[in-house]
Amino acid sequence: MEIVEVAPRDGLQNEKKILPTEVKADLVRRSLDAGLRRLEVTAFARPDRVPQMADAEDLMAQVRDDPRLTSIGLVLNRRGLDRAIDAGCDEVTVVVVASEGLALRNQGVGTAAQIEAWHAIAPVARAAGLGTSVVVAASFGCPFDGEVPSERVLEVVEGVLADAPDEIALADTIGVGVPAQVRELVTGVKALAPDVRLRAHFHNTRNTGYANALAAIESGVTVLDASTGGVGGCPFAPGATGNIATEDLLYLLHRSGYATGADPALIAATGTWLAGELGLAQAPAQIGRAGWFPA
Amino acid sequence: MEIVEVAPRDGLQNEKKILPTEVKADLVRRSLDAGLRRLEVTAFARPDRVPQMADAEDLMAQVRDDPRLTSIGLVLNRRGLDRAIDAGCDEVTVVVVASEGLALRNQGVGTAAQIEAWHAIAPVARAAGLGTSVVVAASFGCPFDGEVPSERVLEVVEGVLADAPDEIALADTIGVGVPAQVRELVTGVKALAPDVRLRAHFHNTRNTGYANALAAIESGVTVLDASTGGVGGCPFAPGATGNIATEDLLYLLHRSGYATGADPALIAATGTWLAGELGLAQAPAQIGRAGWFPA
Repeated sequence: MEIVEVAPRDGLQNEKKILPTEVKADLVRRSLDAGLRRLEVTAFARPDRVPQMADAEDLMAQVRDDPRLTSIGLVLNRRGLDRAIDAGCDEVTVVVVASEGLALRNQGVGTAAQIEAWHAIAPVARAAGLGTSVVVAASFGCPFDGEVPSERVLEVVEGVLADAPDEIALADTIGVGVPAQVRELVTGVKALAPDVRLRAHFHNTRNTGYANALAAIESGVTVLDASTGGVGGCPFAPGATGNIATEDLLYLLHRSGYATGADPALIAATGTWLAGELGLAQAPAQIGRAGWFPA
Repeated sequence: MEIVEVAPRDGLQNEKKILPTEVKADLVRRSLDAGLRRLEVTAFARPDRVPQMADAEDLMAQVRDDPRLTSIGLVLNRRGLDRAIDAGCDEVTVVVVASEGLALRNQGVGTAAQIEAWHAIAPVARAAGLGTSVVVAASFGCPFDGEVPSERVLEVVEGVLADAPDEIALADTIGVGVPAQVRELVTGVKALAPDVRLRAHFHNTRNTGYANALAAIESGVTVLDASTGGVGGCPFAPGATGNIATEDLLYLLHRSGYATGADPALIAATGTWLAGELGLAQAPAQIGRAGWFPA
C-alpha cells in the first residue's frame, strides 16, 4: 500500500490559518522522516484565489533537493504546469470535477473543458519527464448537484483516458461516499483502465472515510491519500473534519495486515504538532490522543 | 437492521457530567420519537461504583409505560437482576469480559466467574419473562492484557452458550478492532451459535468503528449498538470519542441501502441537544454538523 501525504496541499488549503513557508517545509521533512515518500506538496494556482498556496515556488525550493521526496504539484492549466516544471516537481496532478456544479464553481469551466485542459497538459508534462495523475473530484457526490451517478463518473474517466495518465484518483471531495459506491466505482474504473494505477481520496466528513478507504483497497486500489492530523476542514461543511488522517489510516491498515513503510508514532506526533501550528484545539486524528494498540 | 440505542447507559456512564433523571427520560422519549425502539436504558449497579446510573429505578419509572419502548437493563449479578425485574425492564444484558485483566478491574472477578454469574442469572431472567443478551466485552483487545486472541473470545462464547441467551453481542469496549477481526470473530461465533441473534458494539476511539460496523453487518450481524451524538468518551483514553454515533451509523446504513426505521434528522438534533446538556463543545457525531447528503 502506498500513501500520498496531502496535508501540505489539500490539508492546509482548507484551513483558515496560513502557515509560514518554513513550517510547511518542516511538515514535508517530518513526513519524510516518518517514512512517507510521495507528497502533494503544493498547488500552482492563482495566489489571489488560493492564498494558502501563494508560496508554491518558495516551498518547493526548500524541499525539492531532498532525495527522499517524490513531489506532486497540483495544476489546473498550462500556466500552472509550467510553474510546476520550473519549481522542480516530480509529478503533476490535474483535477477534473465529475459534476458540472462544482466544476463551474471551483474552476469556472465545466467538466468537458477540464478534460480538454488535461489533454493539453498531458503531453507537455510527459515531455518534461513528469509523472501524471488525474483526480476525478466529486466522484461520490456534489455539494451543488447532489447525487453524481456512477455512469457519469465513468464517462469522465473515459474522457480522461483518451490520453491516459499514470494514475487515476477517485476523490470524495465533500465526504459523502459509502463503501458500496467505492466498490462500484473502483470496479468500473478498473474495467475501463486495467493498466492505470488507481488511487482514492476520502474525507471523513460524515464518518465514512475509513470504511471507504478499506473498501477501496479491497476493491483493488493501491494508493490512498491521507492528511497528517486529519487537518483540512471542508469549506462546504463548517466544523466538519477534513481528509482522512494519515495516522488513523495507518492504524487501520497496519492492524489489518497491510504494510506501508511509515512510522505511525512519528506521524501522530507530527499531527499533534501541526494542529498546534494551525491553532486547532486538537487534531481531528484520533491516534495522537487515543494511542496505538497494543501500546 | 436493528439499532440498540445505548446513549442512556453506555454513553452517559462514560461522561463526567451526571445528567438529571428528567433529562435522561427526555433522551429516551426523543429516541423513541425518532423511531428507535430498543434502548439500553440504564445499569443496575452499585451507586457508589457507578454514580451516573444511581437513578436506575427512577428513570425506568419515568419511561417504562411508553408502549413503544423495549427497555434493556444492564446487570452484573442476581441483585442487579432483581432490581431490573422490579423496575420493569423488558430485557437484561449481562457483561462477560473476554480478558482477565479488564474482567478483574471492571467487576473484581475473572472471566470464568462472570460466565457463572450469567448461568445463575439466565434461568431467573427467563422465568420472569425477560429477554436476555450477553455482551462479550473486550473481544477485540484489552487495555490491560493487550491482544485478545480470537480463540479466547470463542472459548468465552462457548462457555456462555452452555445456557444460550437470546442474543450475543461482541463488544469492542476500547475501540481497537479492525474489520478483519470483526469478520473472523463473527464467522466464528456464527459457527458456534447459528441460532443465536448476533449483535455488535463498537467505539470509534481510533476511527475504525464505522468500518467495523459495516464489516459486522456484511458478516451476518443484524443488531448494532450506537449512541446518539456519539457521546461516551472512553475512560481509558482521555479525549477519545465514545460509541459510534447513531446518526452517523444511520448515514452509513441508509446510504448503503439498509433500512432501520429511524429518522436521522431527529436523531442528529437529539445528538446536538444531548451534547449541550453534557456541556460538550460539540458532539462527536458528524452528521449534526455536516448535514445529510443529499441535503
